[in-house]
Amino acid sequence: MESDGRLTRGMLIQGALGEGKMLQGSLDSSGPRFTPLVVVELASDTKEEAIAWILSRIRDQQQNGGAELLVEQLGPGVGAQEKENPNMFLVGATRQRLLSGAEEVGLFKECNDGSMRGFTCANKHNFKDFEGDGDSFLNMAECQYIIKHELDTLRAKDETHVPGHTQVKLYPGKSIIRRLQSKGILIQIFPLHGQEELKRLSFSWYKKVKLSFQPLDNIRHYYGEGQALYFGFLEYFTFALVPMALIGVPYYLFDWEDYDKYVIFAVFNLVWCTVILELWKRFSASLAYRWGTLSRKKAFEEPRPGFHGTLGFNPVTGRKEPLYPNAKRQLRVYLVSLPFVLLCLYLSLYIMMIYFQMEGWVLSFHDEEPTFWTGILMFIPSIIYAVVIEIMNLIYRYAAEFLTEWENHRLESSYQNHLVLKVLVFNFFNCFASLFYIAFVMQDMVLLRQSLATLLITSQILNQFMEAFLPYWLQRRRNKKMIRKVQKRRTVEEKELPLAEQVRLEADMSTYLGTFDDYLELFLLFGYVSLFSCTYPLAAVLVVLNNVTEVYSDAFKMCRVFKRPFSDPAANIGVWQLAFEAMSVIAIVTNCALIGMSPQVKAYFTESETQLILWTVAIEHMLLAFKFILTFLIPDVPKHIQIKLARLEFESLEALKKKWILMASQNVDRWMVERDAGLHAWRV
Amino acid sequence: MESDGRLTRGMLIQGALGEGKMLQGSLDSSGPRFTPLVVVELASDTKEEAIAWILSRIRDQQQNGGAELLVEQLGPGVGAQEKENPNMFLVGATRQRLLSGAEEVGLFKECNDGSMRGFTCANKHNFKDFEGDGDSFLNMAECQYIIKHELDTLRAKDETHVPGHTQVKLYPGKSIIRRLQSKGILIQIFPLHGQEELKRLSFSWYKKVKLSFQPLDNIRHYYGEGQALYFGFLEYFTFALVPMALIGVPYYLFDWEDYDKYVIFAVFNLVWCTVILELWKRFSASLAYRWGTLSRKKAFEEPRPGFHGTLGFNPVTGRKEPLYPNAKRQLRVYLVSLPFVLLCLYLSLYIMMIYFQMEGWVLSFHDEEPTFWTGILMFIPSIIYAVVIEIMNLIYRYAAEFLTEWENHRLESSYQNHLVLKVLVFNFFNCFASLFYIAFVMQDMVLLRQSLATLLITSQILNQFMEAFLPYWLQRRRNKKMIRKVQKRRTVEEKELPLAEQVRLEADMSTYLGTFDDYLELFLLFGYVSLFSCTYPLAAVLVVLNNVTEVYSDAFKMCRVFKRPFSDPAANIGVWQLAFEAMSVIAIVTNCALIGMSPQVKAYFTESETQLILWTVAIEHMLLAFKFILTFLIPDVPKHIQIKLARLEFESLEALKKKWILMASQNVDRWMVERDAGLHAWRV
Repeated sequence: MESDGRLTRGMLIQGALGEGKMLQGSLDSSGPRFTPLVVVELASDTKEEAIAWILSRIRDQQQNGGAELLVEQLGPGVGAQEKENPNMFLVGATRQRLLSGAEEVGLFKECNDGSMRGFTCANKHNFKDFEGDGDSFLNMAECQYIIKHELDTLRAKDETHVPGHTQVKLYPGKSIIRRLQSKGILIQIFPLHGQEELKRLSFSWYKKVKLSFQPLDNIRHYYGEGQALYFGFLEYFTFALVPMALIGVPYYLFDWEDYDKYVIFAVFNLVWCTVILELWKRFSASLAYRWGTLSRKKAFEEPRPGFHGTLGFNPVTGRKEPLYPNAKRQLRVYLVSLPFVLLCLYLSLYIMMIYFQMEGWVLSFHDEEPTFWTGILMFIPSIIYAVVIEIMNLIYRYAAEFLTEWENHRLESSYQNHLVLKVLVFNFFNCFASLFYIAFVMQDMVLLRQSLATLLITSQILNQFMEAFLPYWLQRRRNKKMIRKVQKRRTVEEKELPLAEQVRLEADMSTYLGTFDDYLELFLLFGYVSLFSCTYPLAAVLVVLNNVTEVYSDAFKMCRVFKRPFSDPAANIGVWQLAFEAMSVIAIVTNCALIGMSPQVKAYFTESETQLILWTVAIEHMLLAFKFILTFLIPDVPKHIQIKLARLEFESLEALKKKWILMASQNVDRWMVERDAGLHAWRV
Repeated sequence: MESDGRLTRGMLIQGALGEGKMLQGSLDSSGPRFTPLVVVELASDTKEEAIAWILSRIRDQQQNGGAELLVEQLGPGVGAQEKENPNMFLVGATRQRLLSGAEEVGLFKECNDGSMRGFTCANKHNFKDFEGDGDSFLNMAECQYIIKHELDTLRAKDETHVPGHTQVKLYPGKSIIRRLQSKGILIQIFPLHGQEELKRLSFSWYKKVKLSFQPLDNIRHYYGEGQALYFGFLEYFTFALVPMALIGVPYYLFDWEDYDKYVIFAVFNLVWCTVILELWKRFSASLAYRWGTLSRKKAFEEPRPGFHGTLGFNPVTGRKEPLYPNAKRQLRVYLVSLPFVLLCLYLSLYIMMIYFQMEGWVLSFHDEEPTFWTGILMFIPSIIYAVVIEIMNLIYRYAAEFLTEWENHRLESSYQNHLVLKVLVFNFFNCFASLFYIAFVMQDMVLLRQSLATLLITSQILNQFMEAFLPYWLQRRRNKKMIRKVQKRRTVEEKELPLAEQVRLEADMSTYLGTFDDYLELFLLFGYVSLFSCTYPLAAVLVVLNNVTEVYSDAFKMCRVFKRPFSDPAANIGVWQLAFEAMSVIAIVTNCALIGMSPQVKAYFTESETQLILWTVAIEHMLLAFKFILTFLIPDVPKHIQIKLARLEFESLEALKKKWILMASQNVDRWMVERDAGLHAWRV
């Protein structure tokens, strides 16, 4: 009986959708009957029955295990060609479905009383921006995130394989989309840009001339919390460096190299680095609270698409899924990846030694016959070395990705952590090994200053070029072709591209690979500024200048070069906080050593070098201890947000208690009966 | 109408209890009609109406805001005297009430499938030891904890003051018991010992001759998780020191002072200290999981009894309660407490310098005319200093408690943290300053070894004496008096004391003030063993020996000297883990410095002292880095427990999801109606 009832309901909806499709058939191909939010591209050789099955699973009701979303095939473009992939699908959802989805993903929204609470459909009218039917309650990025979540959690039922593709096996309870993705049937899934909003955002972000803060709330509104936190951090970091830059300028201009001023500058820098990192945690907590990601709970993590292994039962979920023994993974990590990384570090050291030999040759050449050209030649080794470093970083990056993939991590987060660690260590080594060598082995402060400047400036220019202008230029060429093609067939009066063209244009754009590279760049800049700050006070000035242009080029890149990324409900900058803190610890060690080695300080300890070193080490240890105490003393979350979080928790505890008392009063009659027996039983 | 119904029910219960009292009136005074679990002692000058009100609130039903517990006045003792306090009350509860209380406090118990879950009355039969009515399901310590929790959360309703005591104001929603406690009406509240279980426990713990592990599960069963974790840590720590002791013995016996053996010993110690602290975290997580405290959630913390301030609204609960501005507290901490602590540290340094002068005098005296007596005189300054240190620690402890009380912390946990920090820093300084001075200023390794031995042995003997034997002796004298008095009136055939006598006897016992002093002692011993381990390899042997006797004296103290403490559902050893880790970091620094200073090592770097120091510092930094990496690499919770915790979380997420899908299917009819409107509204 029950399954019959379900069938009827399901058929009704299918009928309704069918009707919609028929209606749409009479319209032009400019768009489906709903707002398209997400594009799903299947391989062009996907079997018809597989497509029909996928669409039916996406459309099916939730109680039947479907995603209950709306989906339409994208009509052919104006300049339809043979090579165009016909299997592009637009996905959307009804308002009602999106609201229930918002509850499912645990979205936090602001209430009428100003607090942030998990959205529930039952209490929807308590939320601040919920007006009427709640049409404008969820923004586009949130809707797209909800649709992605619903698609991701679409699970196989009793199908053993994808219809039409017998080699693509399915396991009950596992995500279909991830399976299709890892088997190459699903090529890509991406959210559409909102043209109107993007125009407004890009104007307020990087197009207007007036200097102002970045529109962080708008960025979050359009790209989600992860992106907005990156831009927030970039801006915060830039402002935080301004005091260091301001203090550094007179040191550079007037060649202040007195002992006391020198030490004061370095100590200020060290304390300042600790303080800004601690304050960032508080600032980021404020942002995350305002954006509703601070108290949001993480859902159970599914295995990442590329994960493989022998079939078994997951000890946590009890579901059938591939398992891979942890010991085997550890062996791969420690016996292959670790030696490989160490080998690369050795290679990097070797190249560094070649660089120093080249430096030596050029210097001797210049010393023999100093001319204008040999003066210029002096800079050549540094520039070559900087370029080689960039290239090595790129190659190593691919190797690291391959190795981490091969280590076969079950979770995306674990994969990311191993990748970040590999790349971080190598980049750190690659960028700073030569500086360490110059500073502590050669002890040549003039060369250190010169190398620092060359490395900093070269890597900045290269980065800006490779990151924004090169992809943009490639993209532009492709776009122009398509726009020209479209305009050939259409009148020029229509400024906006038709939907089908717009979707295909965006599908061809490069994919934004996350904030990894952006953070890495900031991390290395932070290293240049903090590690040897006392030898080159101008570093902070250069980094501030770089960051200002970085804001513009990154903003431009996000708006014009890349596909829109799915929003990522991040509550903090994650592993990068740790990385920056580790850097600030290393900076204490290097700066103390540099000060101890400086001739001005040595002049104070003429009779005993031992005394000098002991003092340096003692001060270094005190600074380290002070740093750790400071980290403990400054709370990570501002007081007023702590209070708000505590209030939420208190309310949920109170609700639980009310439930208990209610239950107790319901039990009172039973209690009256059992009491005498109980009293008797409890007597000694 | 509703209140009438309530009244009738309340009256019914009152009637039933009244009947019980009447029945009991005809029996002897040996005990009430229920198992007494907790004793509440009110001041002897408490007004009759206040007592009646308190008892009625404790007895009243939960839905009327009562605690729904059973309570009886304790009859007069056999040797009843004028000075005996008549206001002693025995509190108990019905089995049913205890089970619902167990759900309320969020007790975790083992299920039939071997996992640990929060107990609920609805699923009670899924739990492993739940048989029949569940009579033996909760142990006595758990029942006492539940009763304490219920009493603590008994809140004022619309009363403005305690009846009969107009000066004791009450605020709606605040804990009555805490108010009575801070106003001195409630003198004490303590759980009763279970004589039978105590006898069995003390036999298996310290009375039997055979050497074996401590009965940790039984200790936890009787004293709760906090105590059991302390004894678990004490045992773990003892066993963990055995390898260090074993390696240390040949160094001491054969006077091995070669460079390589020396360094190997120190490095082994440093790595070992890190490893044992990391492994303890895993071991403690296993214990806490087995005992059900690992995943238990903390309830909202009420202000501690002594907290005062101007009346206002708590920003979290919205309830009226005393508020005290945080800025004022910070001022007290930084402008009064901090300078006071620094002053005490200075005083401690001053006394240390006097000690060294005394040492000098004695030494010169001995050098003039060396006899047997001057040889003994050599030890006198050390012994005096050790005794003075103990006395200073005691005095400082009172001052620290007074100051921390005066700082007026709102929460018990914050009070404890500030107190622990104050006492820890001073004790550390007091115990180790002289050793640091000898090691790094005087650089006299022979004196260091001698002082270390003297300090270690003296403080051990003093501690054991002050901690267990002195209180026991005092207690015994008191007990003997009472037993003699009782036996005067009774026949000698009854071995067990009657209940009333037993309760009064326990009420007179000293109160156990928590694990603070026990952990502090272990912390200082760990310092002796780790900070200067490479100069005195026998330290570990002495500490192992001390710990073995410590187990016995602590066990004896818990069973015979003190009142039973309320169990404390701790999941770990809290701030002490941090303290021990900080000590192991300091140990790396001191040991590296000691090795660098040793003549054997200096012999290797004859030409350049600078090289020696640089190498020492480099190795020290590498060891520190290695320690932090090791801390990161070793997971804090063993894998199999991580999986069990993840399974619990996964199940609760799945249950939530099922609820959503159910709601969605209930909404489907509404959805069908709203769909067309929705589709229309979402169209561009």
